[in-house]
Amino acid sequence: MARLVMKFGGTSVADLDRIRNVAAHVKREVDAGHQVAVVVSAMAGKTNELVALCRGASALHDAREYDAVVASGEQVTSGLLAITLQAMGIDARSWQGWQLPIVTDGAHGAARIQSIDGSRVIEQMEAGRVAVIAGFQGIGPDGRVSTLGRGGSDTSAVAVAAAVKADRCDIYTDVDGVYTTDPRVVPKARRLDKVSFEEMLEMASLGSKVLQVRSVELAMVHKVRTFVRSSFEDPNNPKTMPNGDPFGTLICDEDEIVEQEVVTGIAYSKDEAQISIRRVPDQPGVAAAVFGPLAEANVNVDMIVQNISADGAETDITFTLPATDYERATAVLNDKKVEIGYKTFEGTTGMCKVSVIGVGMRSHAGVAAQAFKALSDKGINIRAITTSEIKISVLIDEAYTELAVRTLHSAYGLDKA
Amino acid sequence: MARLVMKFGGTSVADLDRIRNVAAHVKREVDAGHQVAVVVSAMAGKTNELVALCRGASALHDAREYDAVVASGEQVTSGLLAITLQAMGIDARSWQGWQLPIVTDGAHGAARIQSIDGSRVIEQMEAGRVAVIAGFQGIGPDGRVSTLGRGGSDTSAVAVAAAVKADRCDIYTDVDGVYTTDPRVVPKARRLDKVSFEEMLEMASLGSKVLQVRSVELAMVHKVRTFVRSSFEDPNNPKTMPNGDPFGTLICDEDEIVEQEVVTGIAYSKDEAQISIRRVPDQPGVAAAVFGPLAEANVNVDMIVQNISADGAETDITFTLPATDYERATAVLNDKKVEIGYKTFEGTTGMCKVSVIGVGMRSHAGVAAQAFKALSDKGINIRAITTSEIKISVLIDEAYTELAVRTLHSAYGLDKA
Repeated sequence: MARLVMKFGGTSVADLDRIRNVAAHVKREVDAGHQVAVVVSAMAGKTNELVALCRGASALHDAREYDAVVASGEQVTSGLLAITLQAMGIDARSWQGWQLPIVTDGAHGAARIQSIDGSRVIEQMEAGRVAVIAGFQGIGPDGRVSTLGRGGSDTSAVAVAAAVKADRCDIYTDVDGVYTTDPRVVPKARRLDKVSFEEMLEMASLGSKVLQVRSVELAMVHKVRTFVRSSFEDPNNPKTMPNGDPFGTLICDEDEIVEQEVVTGIAYSKDEAQISIRRVPDQPGVAAAVFGPLAEANVNVDMIVQNISADGAETDITFTLPATDYERATAVLNDKKVEIGYKTFEGTTGMCKVSVIGVGMRSHAGVAAQAFKALSDKGINIRAITTSEIKISVLIDEAYTELAVRTLHSAYGLDKA
Repeated sequence: MARLVMKFGGTSVADLDRIRNVAAHVKREVDAGHQVAVVVSAMAGKTNELVALCRGASALHDAREYDAVVASGEQVTSGLLAITLQAMGIDARSWQGWQLPIVTDGAHGAARIQSIDGSRVIEQMEAGRVAVIAGFQGIGPDGRVSTLGRGGSDTSAVAVAAAVKADRCDIYTDVDGVYTTDPRVVPKARRLDKVSFEEMLEMASLGSKVLQVRSVELAMVHKVRTFVRSSFEDPNNPKTMPNGDPFGTLICDEDEIVEQEVVTGIAYSKDEAQISIRRVPDQPGVAAAVFGPLAEANVNVDMIVQNISADGAETDITFTLPATDYERATAVLNDKKVEIGYKTFEGTTGMCKVSVIGVGMRSHAGVAAQAFKALSDKGINIRAITTSEIKISVLIDEAYTELAVRTLHSAYGLDKA
């Protein structure tokens, strides 16, 4: 007997047939004797429809009202799934965020979960009843409905799993696991049996869309074993691993992964932009003078490269940002030219960031050099580089994205046999 | 300065344009210096869509889950209207049933309001803020969302008006008031300036669709002056009465109506059925033996006629019921034949109940006789009669409905000049 949290996204609950399919997945686990809580998203398309209504009502809308409107999508799905489970003879009830409660901070529209009272869900589970919880939502300190921002249902599921001390949090989605890279770009991409929290966090941050970044952070902090699997399997006879385990990818503590590869995956994110500020005074406080105003303007600066200056007087600063923030960033720089004291700046959109990720890098030298050589062999120019303990990111022209990803995937031996 | 509750139904909030129109109505009252709370229904069609989803999930669904799903419609409208009002520069916020709270009993799907804490709405109103309240919903003793049954938003509005001691509850709808009868049947039907609570209650019970019966009951008990008016008027320049009052029908205490007519209106309801039970023992307890089992089977018995028997041994009982309950009723009667001890029964659907309503009947003799004569003159056969202090109802063949309504409308001098 295990305690499971099962999460189903929008495409998995898109209509009543899909909801019945979800209920069959839940029934399988209940019949196997597990204690089960379920977290659901809104039916596919519903959230977009509700967001469009809010925008239509006013471009600048009160985030608290937006939350009240948009949270209704998950409310509907949780009720419908509870009804469907009951019709299959499974004791179930729905819970909205405010009922549990899932307490968030007051940042309506992008709230963060502060606490979940797991006692009622545990009580329900122990009584053999399935708790069907509306994802993506909670209640703020003002007593009003809050939402966690897009993709927040993953975060709800992991938070619930932490609160009820679940043995595993199963994220059912439209793919059957986490891959070494995007299989649409590299057909030879391999599904990973296991991936560490740290690696998954980098992958999610760096472009993998399988899980929301915050849900991985939360899973890492609370050590919630999170399992990515497909909701499109036959619920009554899902594919299994050779050893009988469910088929998918387990995101878990590094210690649980016996044979750790040096590199686990290649991630990429397009629509990046790059700005270089030329001949900035090379003195303390200049970085703050540049990035303070950008932060205030909500420009999401990512990679920052500053070289030691040749003459000790002036230097260049290069940074990357999402292409959507580019116009705003250049406006800020023009505005602050005197304060910052730079001579010129230049920039461009149409960039891509490609990242090589693996906890094995910590103990292996030469991993970065291998990437640089592989890209150079294909004539791909590297515009900027950043590294962390477990990843190397390079900025390249967007046109080379697929070539670079395929090249690195092969270079690190990730291709499927 | 007055304190107003404004209620808008589904067709009045059918899309964003209609919601903007509603907001303009609200703005007009706020600009006139009134304190305003608004009660809204779900966007037209939305409740049906949600009900269909619940039914699709399971024909027999948990009423508590049904409520969680269906109540989301009003939640969306209240948020959207708050956003729209804010965009017009009007301070507003939405309230869901559980937030206020609107406390109901536990009869999920058809709950009754038990209490409303008006203090928060009054606080908001006095601070110049419009409270936009989701109609049709509340919170049950189990801490779960409850709904009041179809048309419940009228009831929500009147209950809120009672709780905040509003000067008037304006029900905005797709007609411009209460008419002496259905204008589709009698083009000469007249709009009433005022109608008493008692008369409106009979009209609503007897087929007028303008207001939900329970909302009128509640208005009568709490003496909430309720005003039926059109949401399709130009919000910035609505039609007024010659004396400058708003255009519509005021439902109020009898004392407020100076010139009371003898008959105020003619109501009708089609799809009635009639059942006659022949040769029942004429002894105490026989009515209970008949109507007890029917009540248990949720058969909604309306008119009951039992004559004094000629021989003192056996009698006949005739009653009417909605045609939709007919099959169920005959099944019960067949089942209980021995217990009731009747010889035969016969019944028919395709009946119509036509009612003449007016508080003036109390002090005027011969009102019923006038109806019987008028119908007889047209050759319309009366199958059953019931009367109360302020109404006469006759059961006739459905085919004669329009003729009977027109005939009675003229007979009591209700035709428009």
